[in-house]
Amino acid sequence: MSIQQAPQVKSLNPPRRVLMGPGPSDVSDRVREAMAKPLVGHLDPEFLSIMDDNQSMLRYVFQTNNELTIPISATGSAGMEACIVNLIQEGDKILIGVNGVFGKRMADVAERAGAEVVTIEKPWGEVFSLAEVKNAWQTHKPKFLGLVHGETSTGALQPLDGIGELVHGDDGFLIVDAVTSLAGVPVMVDEWGIDAVYSGSQKCLSCPPGLAPVSFSQRAADVLSSRKSKVQSWYLDLSMVMGYWGGERAYHHTAPVSMNYGLHAALQQICEEGLETRWQRHDNLHRCLAAGLEGLGLQFMADKAHRLPQLNAVAIPDGVDDAKVRRRLLQDFNIEIGGGLGAFKGKVWRIGLMGDACGKNQVLTLLGALEYCLKGEGQKVGAGAGVGPASDMMLELGI
Amino acid sequence: MSIQQAPQVKSLNPPRRVLMGPGPSDVSDRVREAMAKPLVGHLDPEFLSIMDDNQSMLRYVFQTNNELTIPISATGSAGMEACIVNLIQEGDKILIGVNGVFGKRMADVAERAGAEVVTIEKPWGEVFSLAEVKNAWQTHKPKFLGLVHGETSTGALQPLDGIGELVHGDDGFLIVDAVTSLAGVPVMVDEWGIDAVYSGSQKCLSCPPGLAPVSFSQRAADVLSSRKSKVQSWYLDLSMVMGYWGGERAYHHTAPVSMNYGLHAALQQICEEGLETRWQRHDNLHRCLAAGLEGLGLQFMADKAHRLPQLNAVAIPDGVDDAKVRRRLLQDFNIEIGGGLGAFKGKVWRIGLMGDACGKNQVLTLLGALEYCLKGEGQKVGAGAGVGPASDMMLELGI
Repeated sequence: MSIQQAPQVKSLNPPRRVLMGPGPSDVSDRVREAMAKPLVGHLDPEFLSIMDDNQSMLRYVFQTNNELTIPISATGSAGMEACIVNLIQEGDKILIGVNGVFGKRMADVAERAGAEVVTIEKPWGEVFSLAEVKNAWQTHKPKFLGLVHGETSTGALQPLDGIGELVHGDDGFLIVDAVTSLAGVPVMVDEWGIDAVYSGSQKCLSCPPGLAPVSFSQRAADVLSSRKSKVQSWYLDLSMVMGYWGGERAYHHTAPVSMNYGLHAALQQICEEGLETRWQRHDNLHRCLAAGLEGLGLQFMADKAHRLPQLNAVAIPDGVDDAKVRRRLLQDFNIEIGGGLGAFKGKVWRIGLMGDACGKNQVLTLLGALEYCLKGEGQKVGAGAGVGPASDMMLELGI
Repeated sequence: MSIQQAPQVKSLNPPRRVLMGPGPSDVSDRVREAMAKPLVGHLDPEFLSIMDDNQSMLRYVFQTNNELTIPISATGSAGMEACIVNLIQEGDKILIGVNGVFGKRMADVAERAGAEVVTIEKPWGEVFSLAEVKNAWQTHKPKFLGLVHGETSTGALQPLDGIGELVHGDDGFLIVDAVTSLAGVPVMVDEWGIDAVYSGSQKCLSCPPGLAPVSFSQRAADVLSSRKSKVQSWYLDLSMVMGYWGGERAYHHTAPVSMNYGLHAALQQICEEGLETRWQRHDNLHRCLAAGLEGLGLQFMADKAHRLPQLNAVAIPDGVDDAKVRRRLLQDFNIEIGGGLGAFKGKVWRIGLMGDACGKNQVLTLLGALEYCLKGEGQKVGAGAGVGPASDMMLELGI
């Protein structure tokens, strides 16, 4: 037995960034400190009580009474997969709205789960009207409808009014991607008749990435218990996972203890702020940022009526070097914004205003830094063209 | 829209435990502090360099040059599922050794992935001889062999000598569960011809739970690239995951940044200690603990020749209340040990000596506390019956 030598690596020393991309978002010191609390076992009574708290706070954030409300032990995309693989059985038909990367992803996940997938498509940045969804629903007669509430690739906010009623009228099930929307705009799971919803810890919840909150209605939970075949994923099989999160506390997998600490602190901050105040904060700051971005001559990808306040996707002006600007923002100002995904790669910047990163200082700093970068790229930008309109809007809103 | 009220929960205040169960294990202050470092984006150059470090240190820990060596963004069991679903295609035959909970779990996961599963079974606590494995391999002529190196439910250490050669002689593939064994006993991935191996961050790596290191040989990686069907799990599809961990840095899912910080610090500690020293430490402390446990009259479930030093499974004496003793250890001494799983539920204690929890102080404290609890249960135990032999052994070993 000959032993390979250990590599020499430098100790961890990550810089302090301002995270204004599509996630992860900034986390508070309180959340960071929670992540560092002493580890306890995943069956320790102290941890079980933290799990209970997290479930109860997640029910509040999702605005639901759903018993099956837990954080999946993986990142947001695993939340998507958990919803799909637990509900879909071989050959089930699902209609999915595709107007960006994440609708497309849902279709891919559903196909891998053996679903018959039909899609309704819209240009990126647009949303589906109730009439369009209704038409597709009645044409295809599927069992499931999957819609992305907040399309992180385009910044579009899909209205969900009337959708639950439409789907339930035919005994169907509504699956919603609330990865970016949750805790930034209203996500009213019970009121809107959502049957399965998933999110991620790292967006407007302002917890590090690593957990995917999900919630299933009783009707959806009944699908699990009456399945004819096993869920294809052992790890995401919620009937087994709930043996741990439910009353039985049966070992399934070892829960990510520290991540649940972080989520606890993040959710507690949301409870203290209150959802309505939080939604208003995101809306207000978005208006300030939007005024500033428009002042800089930048165009939004999504129509004003359907914009996610927490994810501002704008076109990169002609002649501006995407990578260079983002690198300069990161290196000179420690600010991260996101590039475009898929069809929007190289064409779009995605500016997040999520949770703890959604504040007046961040908005003004970013707009100032962006002015600097755009000028550096030879763009004609008036002095204070971004910061001016944004601060005017702050005064107008009285924030 | 009527808003449900926010729940009132107490702030997080977990106690300081000594984690001597089957995992999670104790983590150092350095690892806890790493978990709390400022968050950066998952595509930040600073994070990409942390990823490179983690890959390079994991290669050392696995003793491999495998390019495909990464931490999966979920807990250990997802590492098992990642290995299985990426390698298995519908109808592939896999032979799995079942002598405890985790072999059984592998069979379940493989069935869900569409494999034809055949098993070779042994009583819990025993291991398979090379001849037994060879016989089953030649009888069933499968494509894959799955073995649990460290069976966490029984404390048995499966010898792997000659297994790789056997399997490769027929162009087969060897999949190994190293969740509990990695970094506590030798796991020589390249030397032993292991094609796919998975572990968890929360055992002998002494990082919080939440990541599952995996490594694939080039032959196994070639299986991925020549698959005829998509991997059934989108989240665990390594051909896509490697688009992010490999050179391309293409977005797949948002990596759990803080968990990777924790892993970085934990791996760095292992590199500094050196694997050989670490293995020796686990072996030494196990000998001390075993002397003490035997002094207390406790019987091991696994034969002396095949014991995992880091997971000591012992029979609970007749007349002793399992739950009461474990509760007392936790409440009076802040020490966690594990109960039995599956067939061993209520019959076995599992005492971990993993990573940072594997030290002289922990061994003596546990043995003293166990003496106290056994006496409290009316057992006839001599004064210092555990601590005495353990300290003698420490002196004998010169540690």
